[in-house]
Amino acid sequence: MSANQSPAVKAPLRVGVLGFGGLGQAASRVLAPKGEMRWVAVADRHGYAYDRNGLDADRCIATYVDRGSVGHLDTHGVLSDESIGDLLDRAPDVDGYFLALPNLPNTFMASVARQFIESGWKGVLVDALKRTSAVEQLLDLQNELQEAGITYMSGCGATPGLLTAAAALAAQSYAEIHRVEITFGVGIANWESYRATIREDIAHMPGYDVDKARAMTDAEVEALLDRTNGILKLENMEHADDIMLERAGIVSRDRVTVGGIVDTRNPKKPLSTNVRVTGRTFEGKMSSHTFTLGDETSMAANVCGPAFGYLKAGIALHRRGIHGLFTAAEVMPQFVR
Amino acid sequence: MSANQSPAVKAPLRVGVLGFGGLGQAASRVLAPKGEMRWVAVADRHGYAYDRNGLDADRCIATYVDRGSVGHLDTHGVLSDESIGDLLDRAPDVDGYFLALPNLPNTFMASVARQFIESGWKGVLVDALKRTSAVEQLLDLQNELQEAGITYMSGCGATPGLLTAAAALAAQSYAEIHRVEITFGVGIANWESYRATIREDIAHMPGYDVDKARAMTDAEVEALLDRTNGILKLENMEHADDIMLERAGIVSRDRVTVGGIVDTRNPKKPLSTNVRVTGRTFEGKMSSHTFTLGDETSMAANVCGPAFGYLKAGIALHRRGIHGLFTAAEVMPQFVR
Repeated sequence: MSANQSPAVKAPLRVGVLGFGGLGQAASRVLAPKGEMRWVAVADRHGYAYDRNGLDADRCIATYVDRGSVGHLDTHGVLSDESIGDLLDRAPDVDGYFLALPNLPNTFMASVARQFIESGWKGVLVDALKRTSAVEQLLDLQNELQEAGITYMSGCGATPGLLTAAAALAAQSYAEIHRVEITFGVGIANWESYRATIREDIAHMPGYDVDKARAMTDAEVEALLDRTNGILKLENMEHADDIMLERAGIVSRDRVTVGGIVDTRNPKKPLSTNVRVTGRTFEGKMSSHTFTLGDETSMAANVCGPAFGYLKAGIALHRRGIHGLFTAAEVMPQFVR
Repeated sequence: MSANQSPAVKAPLRVGVLGFGGLGQAASRVLAPKGEMRWVAVADRHGYAYDRNGLDADRCIATYVDRGSVGHLDTHGVLSDESIGDLLDRAPDVDGYFLALPNLPNTFMASVARQFIESGWKGVLVDALKRTSAVEQLLDLQNELQEAGITYMSGCGATPGLLTAAAALAAQSYAEIHRVEITFGVGIANWESYRATIREDIAHMPGYDVDKARAMTDAEVEALLDRTNGILKLENMEHADDIMLERAGIVSRDRVTVGGIVDTRNPKKPLSTNVRVTGRTFEGKMSSHTFTLGDETSMAANVCGPAFGYLKAGIALHRRGIHGLFTAAEVMPQFVR
């Protein structure tokens, strides 16, 4: 399972990216300098592109931004309203996909997984899902994925993902885990550039929900932010870290909390994103281990890096005949050079 | 690989501990409350004890402390100068062992591994080795371990071990790792209770080596500590974190440093033990992630917890027919309830 035992003789892993919004585009840039992975396939809502010699991130991004779909790419692009299915027919030899799709509605990722199962394709899928209910739908597909010969890695972004895995590691020092607290910090200079995101955040605040937040006028948002000095404090967010740590046998889901602080008036993060694991050691001491992300690291780096690390680990499992569903808390990601 | 998919039907894993000094005794206390593992075997220099219904930590520790060997234990103890070999003959059905042996001389752990290979026993071995050169000897046995049907997990204590794994995780956010710095803090009230340990620490200081430190009189140690206000600063220690992270393809070994600060006049730790991973993201930003251990956690908790977590993960690998050598940087430990 080691990365560098015989690097010279290994062909690069052929990987695809489904979805080509901000996250998918970042994924293509993360892949560009890698020798161990070759980006050969991409699909968006209106088309796909496939080149077994490797796609060019700059060209794909420019085509998507200018014309709305990678399907417009010269030579390798194909326009299609059934882009995922058509890509699977065209490119059976892709080792694994990063599903960088927006999970809207909340059942979308599970329906994509079903499409892979039905297609007969065998390989590795990785998602960076956030919500507990979305990961639960994948857990329900566990047996079908296994029978189909698919190794599916769920919740493998930043949180859930990197921070969940760090919590699973930190738990090792303790006889009993009392709580796992994930806290993220976000700083933005001006909320008006992020009208939709800020309303999504407000939806997580006490007394609000998605509909209520979406219905707010800009003046109402402005008034709320004036009352809080521009700070949004988010608590008890529905994040799949809880079910992932419970499934790994570490702690029951009600002991896992996810929250954050968004400063809408300052690009500096109000706090460093971290996970804190509190427990009791075998000698009876209470303590906490903490894993903290560097403030300079972006969401894109903290999501895409782990996603491809889990994709590589998933391909190693797949090649050993290990199929089914795994989460970030159960498998060590492998570093992709 | 999940811990809790069908907990009710699983028999406890039968585990053994080799070596019954401070670390082995702590291991027996860590195991005592676990439902998923049953401690059935132990060996020290002069004997062994085996009970397939489970050994009692308090009784074994009392016997060892009072009489010098667990071989003196009523009913289940056997005195032997070939305690490991005799135990292996007597107890072929142990799933895995934690090798809590002092690695003196530096080739001892590899010779124990060879003894397991030659005995024909198949199962999982876990060590908490520290020195690079000791782990290298195990790496040399990789093929033999694989052919023997043994899954060997090396460097699975605190550091290397927990902190190495945290470094492997933290690396995921970065395109390129520049350095990994492991720093530990130790506080002791009075150096005279730790005469041997303090000389071992001094051996790591610039201008000293093992022989020179061992030859120092107490007055010379005292004089050195007076010059440093009781603080020992250890740098560039030989720790296998370097070779483990290199083998996992993350960073070349010369970019990994291990050091620490020992305060010999204050039981409070002078700093919290941590690992800091510095790298460059795909966007070109430099940053560092940090994993920090709670000050209240002991060396015993941070070594034995991970060791059994890796033992459980190793048994899952072994049951899937995956044998050979792995390190803490390559496998996610599993939480043992």
